[in-house]
Amino acid sequence: MHTSSHTIEAAERLGAGITEISDYREASRPGWTRDVFSEAYRESRQWTVHRMKDAGLEVHTDGAGNIVGRLPGTNPNAPALVTGSHTDTVDGGGRFDGIVGVLGALDAVRQLREGGTSLTRDLLVVDFFGEESNPYGLSCLGSRAAAGELTAQDLDRTDYRGVTLGESYSRFGLDPAATLNSHWARRTGLHAFLELHIEQGPTLEQRGLPLGIVTGIAGIQRLLAVFTGSPDHAGTRPMTDRADAMVAAAEAVLAVRREGCGAPTHGVATTTRLESESRSPNVVPSLVRMTSEVRSVDADWLSGVKGRLAQEILGQASHHGVDVDFTWSTDNEVVHTHPGVHDTAARVADTLGVPWMPVPSGATHDAVHMATLAPMGMIFIPSKAGKSHCPEEWTDFADVATGVTALTQTLIALDQTTLTGHS
Amino acid sequence: MHTSSHTIEAAERLGAGITEISDYREASRPGWTRDVFSEAYRESRQWTVHRMKDAGLEVHTDGAGNIVGRLPGTNPNAPALVTGSHTDTVDGGGRFDGIVGVLGALDAVRQLREGGTSLTRDLLVVDFFGEESNPYGLSCLGSRAAAGELTAQDLDRTDYRGVTLGESYSRFGLDPAATLNSHWARRTGLHAFLELHIEQGPTLEQRGLPLGIVTGIAGIQRLLAVFTGSPDHAGTRPMTDRADAMVAAAEAVLAVRREGCGAPTHGVATTTRLESESRSPNVVPSLVRMTSEVRSVDADWLSGVKGRLAQEILGQASHHGVDVDFTWSTDNEVVHTHPGVHDTAARVADTLGVPWMPVPSGATHDAVHMATLAPMGMIFIPSKAGKSHCPEEWTDFADVATGVTALTQTLIALDQTTLTGHS
Repeated sequence: MHTSSHTIEAAERLGAGITEISDYREASRPGWTRDVFSEAYRESRQWTVHRMKDAGLEVHTDGAGNIVGRLPGTNPNAPALVTGSHTDTVDGGGRFDGIVGVLGALDAVRQLREGGTSLTRDLLVVDFFGEESNPYGLSCLGSRAAAGELTAQDLDRTDYRGVTLGESYSRFGLDPAATLNSHWARRTGLHAFLELHIEQGPTLEQRGLPLGIVTGIAGIQRLLAVFTGSPDHAGTRPMTDRADAMVAAAEAVLAVRREGCGAPTHGVATTTRLESESRSPNVVPSLVRMTSEVRSVDADWLSGVKGRLAQEILGQASHHGVDVDFTWSTDNEVVHTHPGVHDTAARVADTLGVPWMPVPSGATHDAVHMATLAPMGMIFIPSKAGKSHCPEEWTDFADVATGVTALTQTLIALDQTTLTGHS
Repeated sequence: MHTSSHTIEAAERLGAGITEISDYREASRPGWTRDVFSEAYRESRQWTVHRMKDAGLEVHTDGAGNIVGRLPGTNPNAPALVTGSHTDTVDGGGRFDGIVGVLGALDAVRQLREGGTSLTRDLLVVDFFGEESNPYGLSCLGSRAAAGELTAQDLDRTDYRGVTLGESYSRFGLDPAATLNSHWARRTGLHAFLELHIEQGPTLEQRGLPLGIVTGIAGIQRLLAVFTGSPDHAGTRPMTDRADAMVAAAEAVLAVRREGCGAPTHGVATTTRLESESRSPNVVPSLVRMTSEVRSVDADWLSGVKGRLAQEILGQASHHGVDVDFTWSTDNEVVHTHPGVHDTAARVADTLGVPWMPVPSGATHDAVHMATLAPMGMIFIPSKAGKSHCPEEWTDFADVATGVTALTQTLIALDQTTLTGHS
């Protein structure tokens, strides 16, 4: 693929948009913070609506807060193509995660217009509401609602201050009841969903490849392990006579890591938090909560991990005289991309002469939920040093432009491709 | 030693007192909670004052909040004997830690009166103010002040809400300036200090011995280790490419434990807290703070531990690509009991026919600070299952009575014993 003046212009245009929206951020927080339900997010969403209208789209916001821009196709009866991502960020996050998928989709619309290309199908460009994790413990709020997977119980979830998710919707100007009635499938069949996103890992950069075509999105198993020992005086209880919950938990942290290191293909295992109930500086910890997660696109390995970890952690804790209580929860199952969408994107990349590789996605995306509505695919572009969810998150604008070209051409190809089944 | 009706009466009397003061507690907290500066403590101190007056003592409260009851001796010019302990408890604590040393001392006064024994020296019975650890990170407030070791900077220490220690003294009705002017040595020379206390560990019970005579009080080295890694996405960063601060900290928890297990004689090493800065469930922990402590009466081992732990923890962290910053602080140095006081107590136990053993104290006591003012000794009685700082803390009342008899007879013996040097 040669770098044309056209591509250079696109890179500059995309870079300008990324820089412009990054100005909407919470000044008191590090990095580029634009939490769901924040004032910064409320303001940035106005900017996004204007940007969609500037691109010539018919814009509306659905009951779940998703901003949807429609580019009408030539056949109003054909199931629509959908593309998009999100514009909220994590606390202390970066400028690319999600944003390249929304601004990239708008640039795709521009490229279609400028190339004089009319699609048969409607193209819906979506800025999904609140994709990142939030204090209610429920990510992908907008795409979850679109997929009909948001429940009344979810609206009762509370944050640290006791505010419910439903109250937060209301304060933000969204009717909580409407979020439960925003199931897209009730209204329209969809042809396919395609999301452009940064990789958020180092693989593409390390291989020197500008494009990844996603094979599947990792399933996530979360573990809460509670270690219960004996709250003895740290100065008087002999080492040989302790039931130290912190020591048992430390052994478990290392067991979780070993399990991740032993994954056959794609697999990671991380302990993100250890909390000791006691705050006293002179008591042997007797109650420690460990929060860990295991991810893989290999469903068999993922289910095997649970049994192996339980056995190893219990064995070590028992050696220290400590009891363990395990609670596993499935954050999401492994979701494979649709082979037809994957292969279409691969053919497009080959035609464009853009080197690519098949990659798993370790992170969750709106695409997980959209996969319940339509054949789903994702295109990844490189993350510098693999960094994401931090202020240093970076993708060269030229790489963003390459991704947008692949997105545009894949949408054009999908418009004419028959896809069977949903995954 | 035979169990006389006299001893049974003493056990019943001591048990009644222990039960009575345990009613003063914070109802909203678990166990028998009577924090320094709490309303429960304010009320229990009135009870203690009455109890001292009932025992026939002349009672006053010094500028540091210590309640001091004086039993005049026959020679007003002879340096006084001092005994006592504290009546505050830790959050969720028990009914014996400290309390047996105060109520036991009052029973000793009663035994002196009933036995018609007059001491040559004044006997001062002290309920030391706020011995337990508190949100200001400064234990032994009263004995520290008596030893002239409380500083103006200490009064500026703040709790979690930003309230200073000085403000807390004021709210409790104590003049902060007066706490700094309560150095006992300015007013009077002291002959000896002897404290009766529960062991808070399992050794005496395991050996079937009713009495321990303390050889020394453990020095405490506290470690704050800060592990700094890289805050990568937990789903996308390969296991081989991480700098996981939690994993490095877990290795350190095990290293601390191994060091304690390898202590040649008395030594314990405990990690009491691990805190991860990030609260996100999908970020590899990049900043983890570890709080550990190492205690021993063996000063050489204690100082050797610091170097060995630093080397081992740094080596393991470096293997994981994680940096470590160490801050060691000395909570207190090793304090040996006075050989003359120790030997006097030992002779008394032998004379009474009470089996005993020399024991180190892993916990800190007011005796640490009193050792700067006078030759110091301690007598331990067994703790059931070695439990302390918890609601299950228990010592049979008969064992308390045995300890009080040993305390009484040792005070009588010390009254007539010449002691040289302070430790």
